[in-house]
Amino acid sequence: MSQLNVNIPSAGADRYTIHIGSGLLGSVPAQLEKDFSGLSKFVVTDSNVVAAGHLARLLGKAQVGTYIIDPPGEGSKHIDTVVSIIEAMEKASLGRDTLIIALGGGTVGDIAGFAAAIFKRGVKVAQIPTTTVSQADSSVGGKTGVDSTISKNAYGAFRQPQVVYIDVETLKTLDDRQYRSGLVESVKHALIADDEYFDYLKKNMPAILDRDCDVLEQVAYTNCRIKAAVVAADPTEQNKRRILNFGHTIGHAVESASKFSLLHGEAVAIGIIGAELIAQKMGFAAPDRLKRIQEALSMLSVPLKIPKGLQKEDLFDIIKRDKKAVNQWPKFVLLDKIGHVYFKDGQWAHDVGQQIVDETLDRLYL
Amino acid sequence: MSQLNVNIPSAGADRYTIHIGSGLLGSVPAQLEKDFSGLSKFVVTDSNVVAAGHLARLLGKAQVGTYIIDPPGEGSKHIDTVVSIIEAMEKASLGRDTLIIALGGGTVGDIAGFAAAIFKRGVKVAQIPTTTVSQADSSVGGKTGVDSTISKNAYGAFRQPQVVYIDVETLKTLDDRQYRSGLVESVKHALIADDEYFDYLKKNMPAILDRDCDVLEQVAYTNCRIKAAVVAADPTEQNKRRILNFGHTIGHAVESASKFSLLHGEAVAIGIIGAELIAQKMGFAAPDRLKRIQEALSMLSVPLKIPKGLQKEDLFDIIKRDKKAVNQWPKFVLLDKIGHVYFKDGQWAHDVGQQIVDETLDRLYL
Repeated sequence: MSQLNVNIPSAGADRYTIHIGSGLLGSVPAQLEKDFSGLSKFVVTDSNVVAAGHLARLLGKAQVGTYIIDPPGEGSKHIDTVVSIIEAMEKASLGRDTLIIALGGGTVGDIAGFAAAIFKRGVKVAQIPTTTVSQADSSVGGKTGVDSTISKNAYGAFRQPQVVYIDVETLKTLDDRQYRSGLVESVKHALIADDEYFDYLKKNMPAILDRDCDVLEQVAYTNCRIKAAVVAADPTEQNKRRILNFGHTIGHAVESASKFSLLHGEAVAIGIIGAELIAQKMGFAAPDRLKRIQEALSMLSVPLKIPKGLQKEDLFDIIKRDKKAVNQWPKFVLLDKIGHVYFKDGQWAHDVGQQIVDETLDRLYL
Repeated sequence: MSQLNVNIPSAGADRYTIHIGSGLLGSVPAQLEKDFSGLSKFVVTDSNVVAAGHLARLLGKAQVGTYIIDPPGEGSKHIDTVVSIIEAMEKASLGRDTLIIALGGGTVGDIAGFAAAIFKRGVKVAQIPTTTVSQADSSVGGKTGVDSTISKNAYGAFRQPQVVYIDVETLKTLDDRQYRSGLVESVKHALIADDEYFDYLKKNMPAILDRDCDVLEQVAYTNCRIKAAVVAADPTEQNKRRILNFGHTIGHAVESASKFSLLHGEAVAIGIIGAELIAQKMGFAAPDRLKRIQEALSMLSVPLKIPKGLQKEDLFDIIKRDKKAVNQWPKFVLLDKIGHVYFKDGQWAHDVGQQIVDETLDRLYL
């Protein structure tokens, strides 16, 4: 009987640059050709993005192999789509020296990022998010993944992109409901990390809703700065990264129970109000705090109540099966004050009794 | 236009222990229960391993969810098998807190390791290799992956195990041809890294072929020590790790052209002789070196000639499409002396003209 201790050093830090601008899409291929000259390029996008003209704006006359996810949306975020993308890359004789360019919303980024993580043991990926939610959220952080036939995000990997390009002009073609819903993640970032940003968002909301590119660049920059700092502190979600989950415990339950008729950001808005009601109940929310948060979210015209059609029992069941649940009950991320998450005993998420959640759900129906 | 530089720290080194013994299989579950107490366990194995009695020896009366790959072998090393394993884990309500136990040869390790790398963004894996080739080779190094319908190893990830158990008694049930073929990787390790080990192997070959457990423990330990040192120096195969590819360039071509009627180790034995003929031709092989290597490999009763039925044009075509080829021609790993790879200009693999390879193939048919 003998033992051998193996010590494989890690690959080192992931360093990359997020470029933010308006109308930069057309300049990306030349920049990628310069920065990744030895690599073959392959675009993954979806039919919505093509219809909006973004693929044409990106490529111009450049000839680049492209996979168009169709139908677009959550339904295609499935392992079968990844298999299909990888077979397309093989048929195009692509190898390890490939850069995948992911052009689209969060679904495209998740699918293409996961394909990049597993093709030939990993190739590089450039993310070009084109929606409010993906520009705020999914272009930073390295979470990639797709669903199985049985459950959501059954497949996935942590994999950082090599570069991110955010062109806020791509938001101009986004439909109004998607646009507003995606901004809820910006409000969430402000609430967990930056009270000045919260004030900025409220003050500039008319310009944001008017899709003013200068303000949108500032918003994109601040979102990425906040999220990158959290992810850098805890890349694989052992502890602090959970604060990004603020509003998502009840939010996911509402989104799932609505069978995705509520958009992600809409459900998270309801979840944020829920987390705030819990904090109030537990006695650590200043009296006017809920009102200030409601005002900010109301400016986005997103629902702040659980739709009457959803059953409370279903919501409870889903909360118990939350992927972060331990002994069938998750911990909750709660605010200490606007711009700061409650932190106690080394933890960023906390025990909340089922009774309090039950009462909170009741209040969210009213 | 603005830029944000993101710096995500790496997760740190992968540290794990390889336990080597004879008859240790039955003690593994208790040890895993102790070392990974909070994790659900799930076994991935194949029908050959079950038939050999290893699964029963591992589990005893313990009740552990198990997926049995059937049919066993290369044909099942496909993304469809991974999908099927992950759906089985979902049906068993397994989550991120899972330890996959991979019990079997290289194919089982590759499939189970890849499933672990991508299930819920990654779960832990314990490798229990049961063949000469997997105990020498695939239980260390972190390469995991499966084939697509179009090509080999289209899917994969670098992912180190959390622990490895090598029970040399499992080799007693291995069929003779598999057993001898797998030992070629041991000879390869000696040739690239340790001339004393080369002498040890030759001297102890009768005991090895007699499946003497004490000697086999020493062989397993030395293989893992050599491979772990190479992998630690270059985990993702940027340069030095290529030396593990010694004998594999011509070897892979012969294996593939034979449509896998030659076993991997048999093909690598031919490839090792090929690499040696090239080194001789290029003038840096001492006159008796080829003979010494032929003697060692002959003790394993593996073929050292290319079967007459294989076409030289096919071999050439496959070599040109080698996954490490640049401009349709791979570089070759060659020996400087027994126990040391030729290193020049910072490179461990070298340019060899097509003419030399052509003549070498001719000699390998004789």
